Amino acid sequence: MTRSPPNPELLSVNTATVREKWNLRETIEGCARHRIRGISPWRDKLAQMGAKEAAKAARDNGLTVTGVYGAGMFPDSDRQARQAAIDDTRRAIDDAAVLGAQCLAIVAGGLPKDSKDLPGTREMVRDGIGEVLDHARSAGVPLAIEPLHPMYCAGRGCVSTLAHALDLCDELDRAGSGALGVAVDVYHVWWDPLLKVQIERAGEKRLLAFQICDWLATTRDMLADRGMMGDGVIDLPLIRSWMEHAGYSGFHEAEILSSGNWWRRDPNEVLATCRVRHQTAC
Amino acid sequence: MTRSPPNPELLSVNTATVREKWNLRETIEGCARHRIRGISPWRDKLAQMGAKEAAKAARDNGLTVTGVYGAGMFPDSDRQARQAAIDDTRRAIDDAAVLGAQCLAIVAGGLPKDSKDLPGTREMVRDGIGEVLDHARSAGVPLAIEPLHPMYCAGRGCVSTLAHALDLCDELDRAGSGALGVAVDVYHVWWDPLLKVQIERAGEKRLLAFQICDWLATTRDMLADRGMMGDGVIDLPLIRSWMEHAGYSGFHEAEILSSGNWWRRDPNEVLATCRVRHQTAC
Repeated sequence: MTRSPPNPELLSVNTATVREKWNLRETIEGCARHRIRGISPWRDKLAQMGAKEAAKAARDNGLTVTGVYGAGMFPDSDRQARQAAIDDTRRAIDDAAVLGAQCLAIVAGGLPKDSKDLPGTREMVRDGIGEVLDHARSAGVPLAIEPLHPMYCAGRGCVSTLAHALDLCDELDRAGSGALGVAVDVYHVWWDPLLKVQIERAGEKRLLAFQICDWLATTRDMLADRGMMGDGVIDLPLIRSWMEHAGYSGFHEAEILSSGNWWRRDPNEVLATCRVRHQTAC
Repeated sequence: MTRSPPNPELLSVNTATVREKWNLRETIEGCARHRIRGISPWRDKLAQMGAKEAAKAARDNGLTVTGVYGAGMFPDSDRQARQAAIDDTRRAIDDAAVLGAQCLAIVAGGLPKDSKDLPGTREMVRDGIGEVLDHARSAGVPLAIEPLHPMYCAGRGCVSTLAHALDLCDELDRAGSGALGVAVDVYHVWWDPLLKVQIERAGEKRLLAFQICDWLATTRDMLADRGMMGDGVIDLPLIRSWMEHAGYSGFHEAEILSSGNWWRRDPNEVLATCRVRHQTAC
């Protein structure tokens, strides 16, 4: 089926896409030059610049901060380390508020060292989110639980499906207040036979972010071998149509971790390509 | 929770575990020497030896053939290629019958070249299984749909969860005749938040095979970096307890694809280690 290209004003770029060559200021200014209207920083880049400076630069360049990435990672066998992750996520909420970010993405974290207790680890994630939710609500920063691809379950994110993330939303924010929702990154969820129904289940209130890239048929590296939109096997227009049908009208964030290809190129070329591919492949 | 070790008579070894150094005859004789009572061949090894010879060797050595692996791979954009996969799977059914195998594992196959149509590809898988099911029934060989880890969705197997495989069973064999079921390989499904409930849903009639290995916390290679039982993060006794609770009383097949470690070792050491780890880590 042929679908209309998306509104070009809805493209956002995640700092991870150009992380090897540009800091946050350069990325903000690059986005502005390439008429990209949204930016979403990872927290490493944000910390280098500072949230106030970043907020000012985004504002001055007319950019919307569509999300902040890099908080969560709750599980740990040590109680103090769990508390430290909670405190750190509260600080991330504060920074996201300074930026006026549309959401703070929550990455669950994986199994504690030497643990095989996956159900218990998932309870730590639920408890961790529960501990920061009121703070997020007060700050006016929605939390977007980001399910990660199951190949990251052990090491980085044990919330493995959209259904799983939505079960957590149901448990922690049954009323669907809008304070808690999900980030849908096609790279992590494209394979899921339940994707369409779970996007419908999430609905407008819980669909807080939509991240795009592609899954390369030749993928061999698990960590940073993502494809530019259109270079892989994901039917991006189909998934976007599901998002829109469910009521999502927000940005489309290009997040392309690609150590062997896009990270090596001139970021201006990367952004220009994102803009074209957003129109031709999404 | 401490659980009793499994019955050592239930260990089976898949030829993939020692594939670099032993052919099927050597593997059968090796299993017998190591008092391993089950063998499951991949079809490449079976083709080298021939099904009748293999059946005789297994019988002479007192081994049960717990499964045959390497059939299916139904999707293709070309109709004749789809028919060839169906014909090939029928031949695999015949070979499995000669061996008296407890099941033939069905690997779905991935997206056809240049296709992004995942829903359509999954329909091809359903249709392919539907085309061979009567033949399997006549031959007395149950078909075990093997969900593969989502990281293999594009290239090898687009049946990505146990729930997905069971939906196919419901659709194609609603009565639960026993002719169609699932192969549960911990490597592919350990991360699934629904694993326990889907094993229960499958029940005794549809739980046709149980494959064991481990997911290494350090996994970097997607293809052949599986761990020996006990070396990774999977709670094998827990998953086994779910299988047994659901009524499964069959073999536990060690299938360890490990190009960097176990494939390089003396297969006698590998089998001896499997025997020990089956008792200490499963």
